[in-house]
Amino acid sequence: MKHAPLVDQLIHAFTCLPGVGPRSAQRMAYSLLDRGREEGRRLGNALHAAMDGVQHCQRCRNYAEEELCPVCSDARRDSTLVCIVATPADVLAFEQSGEYRGQYFVLMGELSPLDGIGPRELGLDVLEQRLKQGEINELILATGTTVEGEATAHYVLDLAQEAGITVSRIAQGVPMGGDLEFVDGATLAQALRGRRPFES
Amino acid sequence: MKHAPLVDQLIHAFTCLPGVGPRSAQRMAYSLLDRGREEGRRLGNALHAAMDGVQHCQRCRNYAEEELCPVCSDARRDSTLVCIVATPADVLAFEQSGEYRGQYFVLMGELSPLDGIGPRELGLDVLEQRLKQGEINELILATGTTVEGEATAHYVLDLAQEAGITVSRIAQGVPMGGDLEFVDGATLAQALRGRRPFES
Repeated sequence: MKHAPLVDQLIHAFTCLPGVGPRSAQRMAYSLLDRGREEGRRLGNALHAAMDGVQHCQRCRNYAEEELCPVCSDARRDSTLVCIVATPADVLAFEQSGEYRGQYFVLMGELSPLDGIGPRELGLDVLEQRLKQGEINELILATGTTVEGEATAHYVLDLAQEAGITVSRIAQGVPMGGDLEFVDGATLAQALRGRRPFES
Repeated sequence: MKHAPLVDQLIHAFTCLPGVGPRSAQRMAYSLLDRGREEGRRLGNALHAAMDGVQHCQRCRNYAEEELCPVCSDARRDSTLVCIVATPADVLAFEQSGEYRGQYFVLMGELSPLDGIGPRELGLDVLEQRLKQGEINELILATGTTVEGEATAHYVLDLAQEAGITVSRIAQGVPMGGDLEFVDGATLAQALRGRRPFES
């Protein structure tokens, strides 16, 4: 004899979330049942709305509710400049920097043949088509600096060079406001190799 | 410009859960959108079912779907023996020990006047009525060993003594399988005070 079945079902359902084991799931269920029924209903509604209503943008593969995501459907964004990122979270980071006025292409992952993630899974066949159509003038690579990120960057570089398109990569170096003594050696070496003339 | 609105709503809704900040909430939303839509819908259903269908047992205050919880509606349980616990999780712990055949009274908290939690909030007025009705022969106190737990235990002790009912408290001492050197001093002192004759 354990909980009432509905409580057990709720606890079990919470364990599908990343980083949530049986203990946290129990704590979540109790918290909503004790003093957050309205919030629990709101979370339930938000889940259904998102699971049913969120698809991928036809153009950039980011999450979208319409055929195009808010960035791709914004006529003020420069559609000749496309930044290649791995995840929707990366798009968010760029948007929060307030610096970028081009569009994105969201791979939703990085090349990882051992996990069955090849070019097609990342929509790189679609990107290849778009590059050949000639609307894009410059690609900015902003995939991660892991092995998978590097492999993905080189694959995209090949596609772009075949289509004769300028490719750049976001600068790697010392983070702003960082104390040099806490920067790792590989980053510091990269920052040295990437040094630029200093102007007032 | 951020996420699609439905994604933002989902992320925000997740932050109502204990221990979930904006980062984890984002990770949860992405995880379900990327590769767990069915699980997301299941969680949504479980939330609605539990928020609408779970109430408190009329008898012991534990979570229940009917008027009585599974323990209180089980005729094989001894209704003259009642164990006082603070939370539904404590009931679960007793049930998993497999040792207890009586019933429970779940306070859903502990006395904490500064937080506005008095006897009425813990249903102690209801317990007082039940003690006076004479069906209960023995109370077992199993509230925590914190200041609040002790205060609660003493309050219940007073109620039971007024009604002339036997009260016991679960033993405090060294945990089973524990190495003495890792047991804290207060627990060891409690275990010494509670020593019993050793029989073969």
